[in-house]
Amino acid sequence: MSKPRLGFIGLGIMGRPMVRNLLKAGYEVTVWNRSEPGIAACVKEGARKAASPADVASKCDIVLSCVTDSPDVRQVYLGANGVIETIRPGMIAIDMSTISPAVAREVASALQAKGAKMLDAPVSGGEKGAIEATLSIMVGGDAETVASVTPILEALGKRIIHIGPNGMGQTVKLCNQIVGALNDLAMCEGLILAAKSGADVSKMVDAVSAGAAGSWAMSNLAPKILKRDFSPGFMVKLQQKDLRLVLDTAKELQIALPGTALVNQLFQSLEGKGCGDEGIQALVKALEQMDGAEVRG
Amino acid sequence: MSKPRLGFIGLGIMGRPMVRNLLKAGYEVTVWNRSEPGIAACVKEGARKAASPADVASKCDIVLSCVTDSPDVRQVYLGANGVIETIRPGMIAIDMSTISPAVAREVASALQAKGAKMLDAPVSGGEKGAIEATLSIMVGGDAETVASVTPILEALGKRIIHIGPNGMGQTVKLCNQIVGALNDLAMCEGLILAAKSGADVSKMVDAVSAGAAGSWAMSNLAPKILKRDFSPGFMVKLQQKDLRLVLDTAKELQIALPGTALVNQLFQSLEGKGCGDEGIQALVKALEQMDGAEVRG
Amino acid sequence: MSKPRLGFIGLGIMGRPMVRNLLKAGYEVTVWNRSEPGIAACVKEGARKAASPADVASKCDIVLSCVTDSPDVRQVYLGANGVIETIRPGMIAIDMSTISPAVAREVASALQAKGAKMLDAPVSGGEKGAIEATLSIMVGGDAETVASVTPILEALGKRIIHIGPNGMGQTVKLCNQIVGALNDLAMCEGLILAAKSGADVSKMVDAVSAGAAGSWAMSNLAPKILKRDFSPGFMVKLQQKDLRLVLDTAKELQIALPGTALVNQLFQSLEGKGCGDEGIQALVKALEQMDGAEVRG
Amino acid sequence: MSKPRLGFIGLGIMGRPMVRNLLKAGYEVTVWNRSEPGIAACVKEGARKAASPADVASKCDIVLSCVTDSPDVRQVYLGANGVIETIRPGMIAIDMSTISPAVAREVASALQAKGAKMLDAPVSGGEKGAIEATLSIMVGGDAETVASVTPILEALGKRIIHIGPNGMGQTVKLCNQIVGALNDLAMCEGLILAAKSGADVSKMVDAVSAGAAGSWAMSNLAPKILKRDFSPGFMVKLQQKDLRLVLDTAKELQIALPGTALVNQLFQSLEGKGCGDEGIQALVKALEQMDGAEVRG
Repeated sequence: MSKPRLGFIGLGIMGRPMVRNLLKAGYEVTVWNRSEPGIAACVKEGARKAASPADVASKCDIVLSCVTDSPDVRQVYLGANGVIETIRPGMIAIDMSTISPAVAREVASALQAKGAKMLDAPVSGGEKGAIEATLSIMVGGDAETVASVTPILEALGKRIIHIGPNGMGQTVKLCNQIVGALNDLAMCEGLILAAKSGADVSKMVDAVSAGAAGSWAMSNLAPKILKRDFSPGFMVKLQQKDLRLVLDTAKELQIALPGTALVNQLFQSLEGKGCGDEGIQALVKALEQMDGAEVRG
Repeated sequence: MSKPRLGFIGLGIMGRPMVRNLLKAGYEVTVWNRSEPGIAACVKEGARKAASPADVASKCDIVLSCVTDSPDVRQVYLGANGVIETIRPGMIAIDMSTISPAVAREVASALQAKGAKMLDAPVSGGEKGAIEATLSIMVGGDAETVASVTPILEALGKRIIHIGPNGMGQTVKLCNQIVGALNDLAMCEGLILAAKSGADVSKMVDAVSAGAAGSWAMSNLAPKILKRDFSPGFMVKLQQKDLRLVLDTAKELQIALPGTALVNQLFQSLEGKGCGDEGIQALVKALEQMDGAEVRG
Repeated sequence: MSKPRLGFIGLGIMGRPMVRNLLKAGYEVTVWNRSEPGIAACVKEGARKAASPADVASKCDIVLSCVTDSPDVRQVYLGANGVIETIRPGMIAIDMSTISPAVAREVASALQAKGAKMLDAPVSGGEKGAIEATLSIMVGGDAETVASVTPILEALGKRIIHIGPNGMGQTVKLCNQIVGALNDLAMCEGLILAAKSGADVSKMVDAVSAGAAGSWAMSNLAPKILKRDFSPGFMVKLQQKDLRLVLDTAKELQIALPGTALVNQLFQSLEGKGCGDEGIQALVKALEQMDGAEVRG
Repeated sequence: MSKPRLGFIGLGIMGRPMVRNLLKAGYEVTVWNRSEPGIAACVKEGARKAASPADVASKCDIVLSCVTDSPDVRQVYLGANGVIETIRPGMIAIDMSTISPAVAREVASALQAKGAKMLDAPVSGGEKGAIEATLSIMVGGDAETVASVTPILEALGKRIIHIGPNGMGQTVKLCNQIVGALNDLAMCEGLILAAKSGADVSKMVDAVSAGAAGSWAMSNLAPKILKRDFSPGFMVKLQQKDLRLVLDTAKELQIALPGTALVNQLFQSLEGKGCGDEGIQALVKALEQMDGAEVRG
């Protein structure tokens, strides 16, 4: 049985290495991006160029996308020259962006009216923007559709977790972003107390990582802080985009997330200092300024 | 060379299994506790009984202690019938309680005036109150003293980390407690959003644990919450005791720890509901009440 | 000199009594509302009915509006059958809604391109939804325009404060909403400590009101709480609408407002309990639930 | 009927002007202070000097005190050479310090065992440290005792409010301090948004003061900020002492006060910048630093 022809929309820091991995896995990939350089880079690696999202959909069997935010997903799927104009019954769309669960459901519903299926499939763990085999993919949609595209998803991430119906991939991604942001704050407040107390901070990181307060953040982000390395990883401004989605969802659900609201404000102060393009470990600088400390080790 | 004779003061949920491990490792251990039942239990396993902390010190070469809080440590070392009355030059005291770094330094200094050495050596990871080989011990004191008692500490914990001079074991333990408490809040806010959104929470835990938002808490405490198991592990009231030490230290250092202050207040509300003896995963109940949710999976 | 003919768009809880006051002051007023009942009520009191915002503008010299949120203002001014379609050079529009400062500037700019002037003129102090002479009006726009409509504004509020150029009325209104929301939290946390301590809460209110912790909220909202009167005044859901505008503005400015973010989350929890239509003094219920208390007096 | 002889213990920034007012009102006052200069100043104005708290009590009918904190009250009443050593049945002690309600009850109970009565009578409104007729006095104790000393209290404050039994004066004073601190935060967050938006901040203060977001803080502290006047009024470090009493009481009561905890941390950061001796309006500087703003007007 021959491989399905793939389309890919959105060739940014996440999308480009995804296309590379799909090409490596032997798929034919037709691509489109809002700006030309992303397209050129992918064409050089073997992808085919399309003129619009609609053109992508007309030239493939399965459309993937990875764009920035909810309005972008609406635009490339439902806007002028969007996927919806040419998608055919039986086709599948897989959106790997992190967006609002409500918008994920809305777009899935619009495609379903055309006889197509959609999955929301945001990814986690893409530190460094590099797509490595360690990515987790959280999938929302029907089980049969998920099963049918699993080989494709396995070319993009190591763990494919089918959470539930449409929107649930996004919901769990947002949960993930809450936890990541607050683990980051946890690490930073711990580091501040250590530094301000005159402790050997690298030994503190070593000791804490080993036990019941351990986290991915403590093991992976704290060592960067000790070297004053604030390069991203995962950018503050993208974390903030995701926390906005979280807080909008909490508003819809009418629930209080007081810790998330606090860390969102601290990151906002950090953006005001011009640190939006740094990695989320830069959160420590918001506390350092407040507390007159500097964490080194 | 024969093994040193050991003393042990404080035979509670932490101290008793420590004594057992020391006996198993072949040490002679003389014990004292504020109340009788703890003593009886240890004597049955082979320990010798002493009449007071001073009596313990008079009958051993190295004194260990594991009591609740700063005033208790002051009392058993410096109070009436305290260790200081009989400690001899060259002896070593190892306090494994979690207390104020300032009090750790004060007691160390008082013993030093008698020619003895002291180490602060709080432990982390003692979930279930059971002392297993996975305990980390964070040690403050001079390197030579640490080296001389390392075999004893290795009978009590898997990782022995010498952080720095007296008080630094306690400082890093407090950092650890900050991080643990906020990782707990991180997990709980993530779980609440998942539950309130109608997601399959166990799949959410699975997905988040695997990636950049992973933590010991998510892997170990969240599964308990899904089963509505709020048994301790680490009790809310002890977490609060430690957060009080943290906040007192932050006050001395004149630094702001806004996340820690928030989680401390949430735990306080939980204590008001009669949940002080539950495990720290019960924090989810403070959010559940606020948000009209229940996390199950 | 004869009075200018007025138009009024938006005949809700705020708009209707404003129209009444303008009619009482002797103005001819042509009105429009999204739904019929508001129009009928005003017509009964002497207003003339129009068929659309554009129709209002075509039949008057000065357009006033008081609708709910930024999109509503955009719609009635710039949308289909909007004011912009018929507004004439030299006309003035006065928007009394509370909306985003950025949208206020955007609409003002669009009208200016048609040769008209706009003022943003949100009001404060409209407790009970009744428009009394105690309303303050915070005005953004050019000084000459403000001067020319001051007699009209004086029919609607007691204090007319020209803050600065377009948008500044809205900006200061948002500042006002921050302060009001946090004064409300201040009052509620004080009441909770008093109640939980078993104090005579009415004496506490009396004592605090008199001194350096006094506020409008303590003098006016606390007595309602003591009688368990949660009728609005100013509704939780409208306070939340305004706090969303505040937090969106803080996001644009990249500043942290940690207290505002906290009280916004607490109100959100309150909305989840079905209290969105109650007055903002109901905030005490969010704390009462958290703290197992009830404030009565 | 002749006036009772008074004693006064604690001649600091609050105590000294109180003694002056009592002398002006025609009372004989015997004073004691921990350090000599306070005594000398009062003696110059007509007071008599005593050698200790016990000496004060032996030479008067009614003892007043105004010291810093709970341990100081315990010391001067119950310590060596304390009031308790010489107090006689039928005497009355009035403590005007702000301390823990629990300690107020403890000391009252100890004096009662000697046949004496005690009142806790903390004051509010003593901005500038000057004792003016605008002071409120919140009194805990039995009604008969309060009635018998009302003429004395009226020499010290304008409003005398009997709240309830012993400790209740302190409880309500703590409530007052919660409200004052959070009204201060409310004002500061409002000012920050205004300043960062480029608004005329003095007009914002004017507009907000007039309406439903008005407060003593907005009317009295905001104008100081606009002039960059951070002189006390009420010092940050004393506000923090009182917030510590509040948070300790909340801990005893097992209630969450999330706003109070937040503002306490922000003040702590301010103390770390060396602003502990400034007035509480300096809180704005903690936000200014976080948000890259400066409030002037």
